[in-house]
Amino acid sequence: MILRGTIVTTTELGKLTCLPGGCLRLDEQGTVLECLPELPGGQEPVTDYGDRLILQSFSDLHLHGPQFPQVGMGMDLPLLDWLNTYTFPLEARFADLNYARSVYERLAKALIDGGTTRVAMFSSLHTDATLVLMEELERAGVTGYVGKVNMDRNGGVNLQETTEESKRETLRWLESCQQFRHIQPILTPRFTPSCTDELMAWLGNLAQERGLPVQSHLSENDAEIAWVRELHPDCAQYWETYHKYGLWVPRTLMAHCVHSDRRERTAMRDHGVTVVHCADSNLNLCSGTAPVRQLLQEGVNVVLGSDIAGGAQLFMPQVMTASIRASKIRAMTHGDAPLSAAEGYYLGTTAGQQFFGAAPGFGVGEKLHAVVVDDSRFAMDPKRTPEERLERALYQMEPADIVAVWSDGRKVK
Amino acid sequence: MILRGTIVTTTELGKLTCLPGGCLRLDEQGTVLECLPELPGGQEPVTDYGDRLILQSFSDLHLHGPQFPQVGMGMDLPLLDWLNTYTFPLEARFADLNYARSVYERLAKALIDGGTTRVAMFSSLHTDATLVLMEELERAGVTGYVGKVNMDRNGGVNLQETTEESKRETLRWLESCQQFRHIQPILTPRFTPSCTDELMAWLGNLAQERGLPVQSHLSENDAEIAWVRELHPDCAQYWETYHKYGLWVPRTLMAHCVHSDRRERTAMRDHGVTVVHCADSNLNLCSGTAPVRQLLQEGVNVVLGSDIAGGAQLFMPQVMTASIRASKIRAMTHGDAPLSAAEGYYLGTTAGQQFFGAAPGFGVGEKLHAVVVDDSRFAMDPKRTPEERLERALYQMEPADIVAVWSDGRKVK
Repeated sequence: MILRGTIVTTTELGKLTCLPGGCLRLDEQGTVLECLPELPGGQEPVTDYGDRLILQSFSDLHLHGPQFPQVGMGMDLPLLDWLNTYTFPLEARFADLNYARSVYERLAKALIDGGTTRVAMFSSLHTDATLVLMEELERAGVTGYVGKVNMDRNGGVNLQETTEESKRETLRWLESCQQFRHIQPILTPRFTPSCTDELMAWLGNLAQERGLPVQSHLSENDAEIAWVRELHPDCAQYWETYHKYGLWVPRTLMAHCVHSDRRERTAMRDHGVTVVHCADSNLNLCSGTAPVRQLLQEGVNVVLGSDIAGGAQLFMPQVMTASIRASKIRAMTHGDAPLSAAEGYYLGTTAGQQFFGAAPGFGVGEKLHAVVVDDSRFAMDPKRTPEERLERALYQMEPADIVAVWSDGRKVK
Repeated sequence: MILRGTIVTTTELGKLTCLPGGCLRLDEQGTVLECLPELPGGQEPVTDYGDRLILQSFSDLHLHGPQFPQVGMGMDLPLLDWLNTYTFPLEARFADLNYARSVYERLAKALIDGGTTRVAMFSSLHTDATLVLMEELERAGVTGYVGKVNMDRNGGVNLQETTEESKRETLRWLESCQQFRHIQPILTPRFTPSCTDELMAWLGNLAQERGLPVQSHLSENDAEIAWVRELHPDCAQYWETYHKYGLWVPRTLMAHCVHSDRRERTAMRDHGVTVVHCADSNLNLCSGTAPVRQLLQEGVNVVLGSDIAGGAQLFMPQVMTASIRASKIRAMTHGDAPLSAAEGYYLGTTAGQQFFGAAPGFGVGEKLHAVVVDDSRFAMDPKRTPEERLERALYQMEPADIVAVWSDGRKVK
């Protein structure tokens, strides 16, 4: 089978490869066999998207599934009030599986409608609701990781486990995860203040024994960093509270890293830890602006996250442009070179793919993850280059402009 | 006639008035007769929007019509490269009336689809294309001001008039404007560097003689401010270059004002000049962040503008949330109190209405300017308050969620 259109991919930070009238040859399982500059001879069936853009689909590597109903609410509140007024009471509602089902079905659909085919997501601490979330993502065609949250201290009302419960439920959850094909488990200590040392050590062992990936939060704001320092006077820096329990490994995603200094950044690079940049959340909650340019220059892996609901934009093109906008704040306050549109696109696509071990761009031998964008709604000038059309699409498109989505070789929209 | 729904209005900065199940009584011309907390008795026909939100429609008081095709392109370029690569060549194309018609028809539709019923807009220097723009806005149902741009120095290739041409064309344009009912002319010296002293003086006289409003740019970035200082060594500050020619009056809109210090802000307040805050543009072009909180506290009139295409968001709810986000940058860099959702809504609605002399909120005796928003797509919790629903709608809605629009008493969507 062949897909034809204006292909725009990025295999290297800041570089675009454009093939107007380009073709993707796929096998029956949706594996990419070739990426060609023009239609090959032969009898294969062609799906011709004409002049539409064929882009890599998007990766959202930090979001909280149970916070989806709260997007865009309480953005005026400081972090702790926001958590206590909205987030914790809302998360507690996911003990109710019917509520969980209704929210997660919508979330999964919204992700696919918006072209997000890879995720790393926090659930709540509820094992059964986490399984519902995984089911709904699997059903909609999303791939990636979901984590049952571990939280045996400093939780909200009705939102805390005992250490024993947390261990037992984590094991029960992991056993049930074997039913899923495209959604895999990721260990998810909420953040250092939420987990006792005993639980952290147990999770670190589990990660090691089973080769499981890990996700958590790091250095998001000053109050949090000071709190971690109080809790762990033995650790010079926040990252060490993960490292000392074996949770600082190449399969680790750390969200935010707004205040990570050179020493912390070096520890990320040396251990292959991946930073999830959440630009909109960092701005909404006045956390600061992450040193993305430094991270990239120093060789740290950086990917993007919507951070629903600290972030208020689920749609990844908005997350990419929010990252570009945040980089302009850094440009004004720190003189850092801002992110280009090509760089934003790379961070929201190829960088995310690589966390899952996939080749950059549309890699030969990889199952296809792609979106087809009809930009005719905002294209008033047919002479624009594919590079210009990509940038304009990132800034202007809405989910409705995405007319087709492939995830792991399957057409899911 | 009666409209029924969940009415949310703002008549004072930071304050919301919410009427769930509220009613607007209108006469046959769409004039508001009453705003009621519940359905009155009587035989009047009722359009019942159920639980949907009835909001004030939006005012966009700074945007460049001819830059609409360029939204979201060249956002990586510095201001001068951006102008020379995209803006000036694009604006020059509006000598072609067919091209102008095709762009302006789409722009007018996009404005109404997005609930923007009041504008103050820059056209290009082309008189006939400006009349086409006014026609298309009038036809679509937009109200407000459009200005033929005056530009007799420092223009781009094919984008400059002689002083004589500029005067003659301005008079010809003003004469032709009499055909319009809802769109009125506004004098539009592009900015001080674009107009000779002779032209500025002539425009100032014209503004005075005919009581015309004025729009221009002020204190957007440092290089521009330095340039103005070179051009007008007699003026201590940028604003004085408008003041000395009679262009600094209560009918004046000044876009940006990013770098306006206390003296310049005091001159705004004392002369009743209105500032158009263009948050997204200021960030995209790394101009800085405007001192909105200071302006408000000091009693200066502040309204919002999309500044298409320095800004990349035409849809005013995005402009409002961009303003809130920009205020968080100021909070982090200057310690200013950030804008609340209610304040963002006020600036994008009532503040704009007041520039046109309309009463705040849904004023009795005023022609209705309103939008009806169906927020069921993102409402997963029926117990939310109208205040929470408004905030969520500002952050999440798309034009498709606006199911009805009234402009000057007429239903236009």
